[in-house]
Amino acid sequence: MRALVLEKVKQLGIHEIELNEVMGPEDVTIKVHTVGICGSDVHYYDHGGIGNFLVKEPMVLGHEASGTVVSVGKNVRDLKPGDRVCMEPGIPDRNSNEFRTGRYNIDPKVRFWATPPIHGCLRPTVVHPADFTFKLPDNVSFGEGALVEPLAVGVYAVERAAVKLGSTVLVIGAGTIGLVTALAAAAAGAGKVIVADISQKRLDLCGSRYPSLVLLNVAAKPLKEALLGFGAIDFVFEASGAPPSLQSAMEAVAPGGCIVQIGCPLKESSFSVSLAQSKEVRLEFIFRYAHVYPKVVALLASGKLNAKPLITREYTFAEGAKAFEEVSKSDEMIKAQILMPQ
Amino acid sequence: MRALVLEKVKQLGIHEIELNEVMGPEDVTIKVHTVGICGSDVHYYDHGGIGNFLVKEPMVLGHEASGTVVSVGKNVRDLKPGDRVCMEPGIPDRNSNEFRTGRYNIDPKVRFWATPPIHGCLRPTVVHPADFTFKLPDNVSFGEGALVEPLAVGVYAVERAAVKLGSTVLVIGAGTIGLVTALAAAAAGAGKVIVADISQKRLDLCGSRYPSLVLLNVAAKPLKEALLGFGAIDFVFEASGAPPSLQSAMEAVAPGGCIVQIGCPLKESSFSVSLAQSKEVRLEFIFRYAHVYPKVVALLASGKLNAKPLITREYTFAEGAKAFEEVSKSDEMIKAQILMPQ
Amino acid sequence: MRALVLEKVKQLGIHEIELNEVMGPEDVTIKVHTVGICGSDVHYYDHGGIGNFLVKEPMVLGHEASGTVVSVGKNVRDLKPGDRVCMEPGIPDRNSNEFRTGRYNIDPKVRFWATPPIHGCLRPTVVHPADFTFKLPDNVSFGEGALVEPLAVGVYAVERAAVKLGSTVLVIGAGTIGLVTALAAAAAGAGKVIVADISQKRLDLCGSRYPSLVLLNVAAKPLKEALLGFGAIDFVFEASGAPPSLQSAMEAVAPGGCIVQIGCPLKESSFSVSLAQSKEVRLEFIFRYAHVYPKVVALLASGKLNAKPLITREYTFAEGAKAFEEVSKSDEMIKAQILMPQ
Amino acid sequence: MRALVLEKVKQLGIHEIELNEVMGPEDVTIKVHTVGICGSDVHYYDHGGIGNFLVKEPMVLGHEASGTVVSVGKNVRDLKPGDRVCMEPGIPDRNSNEFRTGRYNIDPKVRFWATPPIHGCLRPTVVHPADFTFKLPDNVSFGEGALVEPLAVGVYAVERAAVKLGSTVLVIGAGTIGLVTALAAAAAGAGKVIVADISQKRLDLCGSRYPSLVLLNVAAKPLKEALLGFGAIDFVFEASGAPPSLQSAMEAVAPGGCIVQIGCPLKESSFSVSLAQSKEVRLEFIFRYAHVYPKVVALLASGKLNAKPLITREYTFAEGAKAFEEVSKSDEMIKAQILMPQ
Repeated sequence: MRALVLEKVKQLGIHEIELNEVMGPEDVTIKVHTVGICGSDVHYYDHGGIGNFLVKEPMVLGHEASGTVVSVGKNVRDLKPGDRVCMEPGIPDRNSNEFRTGRYNIDPKVRFWATPPIHGCLRPTVVHPADFTFKLPDNVSFGEGALVEPLAVGVYAVERAAVKLGSTVLVIGAGTIGLVTALAAAAAGAGKVIVADISQKRLDLCGSRYPSLVLLNVAAKPLKEALLGFGAIDFVFEASGAPPSLQSAMEAVAPGGCIVQIGCPLKESSFSVSLAQSKEVRLEFIFRYAHVYPKVVALLASGKLNAKPLITREYTFAEGAKAFEEVSKSDEMIKAQILMPQ
Repeated sequence: MRALVLEKVKQLGIHEIELNEVMGPEDVTIKVHTVGICGSDVHYYDHGGIGNFLVKEPMVLGHEASGTVVSVGKNVRDLKPGDRVCMEPGIPDRNSNEFRTGRYNIDPKVRFWATPPIHGCLRPTVVHPADFTFKLPDNVSFGEGALVEPLAVGVYAVERAAVKLGSTVLVIGAGTIGLVTALAAAAAGAGKVIVADISQKRLDLCGSRYPSLVLLNVAAKPLKEALLGFGAIDFVFEASGAPPSLQSAMEAVAPGGCIVQIGCPLKESSFSVSLAQSKEVRLEFIFRYAHVYPKVVALLASGKLNAKPLITREYTFAEGAKAFEEVSKSDEMIKAQILMPQ
Repeated sequence: MRALVLEKVKQLGIHEIELNEVMGPEDVTIKVHTVGICGSDVHYYDHGGIGNFLVKEPMVLGHEASGTVVSVGKNVRDLKPGDRVCMEPGIPDRNSNEFRTGRYNIDPKVRFWATPPIHGCLRPTVVHPADFTFKLPDNVSFGEGALVEPLAVGVYAVERAAVKLGSTVLVIGAGTIGLVTALAAAAAGAGKVIVADISQKRLDLCGSRYPSLVLLNVAAKPLKEALLGFGAIDFVFEASGAPPSLQSAMEAVAPGGCIVQIGCPLKESSFSVSLAQSKEVRLEFIFRYAHVYPKVVALLASGKLNAKPLITREYTFAEGAKAFEEVSKSDEMIKAQILMPQ
Repeated sequence: MRALVLEKVKQLGIHEIELNEVMGPEDVTIKVHTVGICGSDVHYYDHGGIGNFLVKEPMVLGHEASGTVVSVGKNVRDLKPGDRVCMEPGIPDRNSNEFRTGRYNIDPKVRFWATPPIHGCLRPTVVHPADFTFKLPDNVSFGEGALVEPLAVGVYAVERAAVKLGSTVLVIGAGTIGLVTALAAAAAGAGKVIVADISQKRLDLCGSRYPSLVLLNVAAKPLKEALLGFGAIDFVFEASGAPPSLQSAMEAVAPGGCIVQIGCPLKESSFSVSLAQSKEVRLEFIFRYAHVYPKVVALLASGKLNAKPLITREYTFAEGAKAFEEVSKSDEMIKAQILMPQ
């Protein structure tokens, strides 16, 4: 099939590629409709790898996808051809201890789209397990369906934190992941959601689309100082990936509060243990998400999550290479999506 | 002072009463502005008691209140005269084990307004501990402030259940408490909130004010049957107080789900343990609320809870007796409030 | 193979039976060594069914087993022939929602040994999934290995309750399940473990083997009265299955406490909701266990659980029918085990 | 009264000191019997301060104490003269938000014995709130009573971690706090408790008294390597206070595991966030303890905690200065105690 293939750094194009996918009795085949471009896709495009994951062979990019079921395996009961769906991109080993205990996202053997050597979904069709494929209600568009993946990160973070009704939430980092986390916190009933960043441009981009967020520019003064007057910060989500942010989060959080580290700094983070102890902070580290796709779909269907303003630009499949080039350079993109030929 | 005093069953009037309140160093004195009429107030009015709590001496009614601080004790730091506030009506014993462990609502020595022999707040002024008095932001009205009390029941129930983003919630009972619980569940990000009742009139009253609620008339068929097509019910809040409701809740809830019993049946409830076991239900019993007033105020301020449609009728203090008479008879009241002379 | 087969009520014998088991790549074949007789086995023997589970075809009994691995499937890494093991008897559907979320014990499609129509393990060999087969350390005997199953019920109940160090625990019911729950609670650091029963004989049987348990005969007076002087009861485990026990548990438990219903009454249980609310009881219902086998093995290996005194009688396989006859009649058996020919 | 007073660094002696304690209606007066010497006492003796807490005025040392009630305030119901008791040394502000929410240990206004400027208890009598004074059962000695304080640190850490039955626990640091944490983890039913240290002498000191602990010398190789063969480490308690220990803990802990930071490094700790994320670690920071005194007393009474081997040396009050000198120099002390004249 013809897919959007990353050959090596900055070399991306639509090529014929042989994938040899076999549809098992529990699988479905899906005609892909919309694929979002994630920061990790762009990182592979720009650098050819992320940490230990190196693109050594040509690899299809893309893991945020929606589409239409075209055929189903013989044991599949809950899906049928024609169903509009979104797909959870990481498939764990069903015999792993992590899968059995319900924490499949930390299964080291998980096969995740567009994480070398696993091909992604920027291609006409994919074969996927039915139980990692979720039906979209009529009022949820393909574009929103392809947003379930990044939204899942935010919803999972908020779930792990156990954000409470009426609490005050701070999100550090106004990028796409920071923004979806802020939306999830607001949907969970946080009384106030503050988004802090050092870039006024990023803050404006968030604020123009989601005016109820409280925006905090921390370029000029320390976070703790900028927060004066906001009262107790019950939950902090670190979504910037900047190593010093953890210490800032410790300073910002209220006694008895919780910090969730979503961003992934490239080098070690350091912080004051004695400060963390004096507040008895709970610090949670999370990795992707588990068991949240149906919940995100329900939130989109009910309007509790309003995701459409996240889509900043749409490209055709033929424009795929151009899309990556533009997203790589732009600082005004929240989410670009590629529409596959139907 | 002149207060709305219940002399005995159905005998209610504005009388002079001597209360001898002393303001301590940690207390404030509040000029009362608005007082909501609760089902328990009406029950005392109609029956002269609830369970073991019997009105033996004339008692001032009312416990849902807002007002304005007029003076503060010498140790009070966070409130000052002129502050608009709402008041949490149950004052625990600070030396009790329950208070020390943060569960002051189940302190048997709690002194709760308008629960015999403690006088309520349908009177010009009250003396109250500063830390059970909460400042209202400018955009929260006195009427909303007096609604914090019933809303606190719903918010606390949702917090104890730990309702998750995107989950499906069923509330049994479309009375005031059922409705505030449904609103709290929606604010907590439930993907779908279903309210079930046998009275179409009560359902219509809810639906006319909160159109996003899913209304379910269960007069004609069993709850479980009426729920077909709604998918897994993750949380059930029993707010009707009808003894058979617990068994219905057990039938309705999904495996691994949670039931919160808010309603208080007058006789024993019975249910099938084996059904509950096959689903590994968690069943929580709650009593009033603790630590939620500031959260409810934050939710009102942020618009996450829209409480104004709950107010169905306002009365002057002079109309107090008439208000009780009407509320006692009407089935079209969600919340009636009495406005004190200012 | 020749197995201990229940033909119909009270008709039990060693017969040739065709089982047609196929060992898949993730399975192991185990030569069975020891099989404990459970109350449910005896109930099938005495009554031909439990609730909706009816023995319609001849069925092999037994689900508490240990043995030795004789061969392994090609994907099995953690077990090898010669390994001494115990086997978890309920195999869930790996594609079920319950399995995926880590709650496989409430998967309705679980296939559980000796629950009609699934054959049990009172036979020479069984084929079993490797990940439901657990290696026994050298210092854990086959007899203890076959006790892992009933111990798992107690350990799981204690885990779900989240028994805390130094807390006071009450177990209602001094049968085998009550006793293993008491042992698990003691292992979890309960400061005091009280076992209540109406049979002095059963209490004596427990006390003679586990002298540190506090025994409470409640034949002559109400539980609540019998508990005077014991202080706050933080956790209650209902393991008698008597319907009135739930109300007794509600009366016994301390405010803020937790009740776990392990016993399964044949008819509905009734209790006072208002009492439960005044204490804000958390009531957990459990069904078998999940994810606890390795923990029980670790507890046996470390000596934290001393299970040997639970074994009251051993029979040979040839004595199988006699064993059931005796266990069915005796009230002095904690656990009888059948030793298979090796 | 004559107390053991620290004048300044290394200047310690028995002096007359005026304390002006007033016994309120909720207080008791206690004749002190035994006082343990804590690392923090020694640190004040050696350095004149800990972090921001500086000894500016002469201060009585000691906060680990037991004694006998000599008189009680008029509202005290649960204690009477003659009762043998232990005392929780930190008294919070009952009007603080932390006290109200049950987290009094993180109340910044807590008054803690022998933390400047609050005097400690190395003196004949103390006045103390009755609800922070706990009766000792007959089978718990004064020496054990004075050990409740350090044991409370370990029990609280284990409670916050929620150590599960049969889990594997690693404690980093074989000092007194590491050891009491290991004992608490064992009491909570950990299947295996491993204590790691770089000092063979400290490990031997622990092992000679508690032979069931697994001792691990990590002087010569990295912790992760030393742990090969021990299986999954479910819980790690960092009790060394060495800044690099947090990264070692991250490497050691199993996916889905929990780390509790008890030790307090003097400088910042750094670690790899991406490692923590790949395992979804929960990291808890704790400060002293709350609500655990009665539980520790129950554990001592029941024998679940065997504390006597912790006492390595006893001194008379007259030997107080010598005791500090010796403890300051020795590396073979687990716990030294001072016996007051009776």
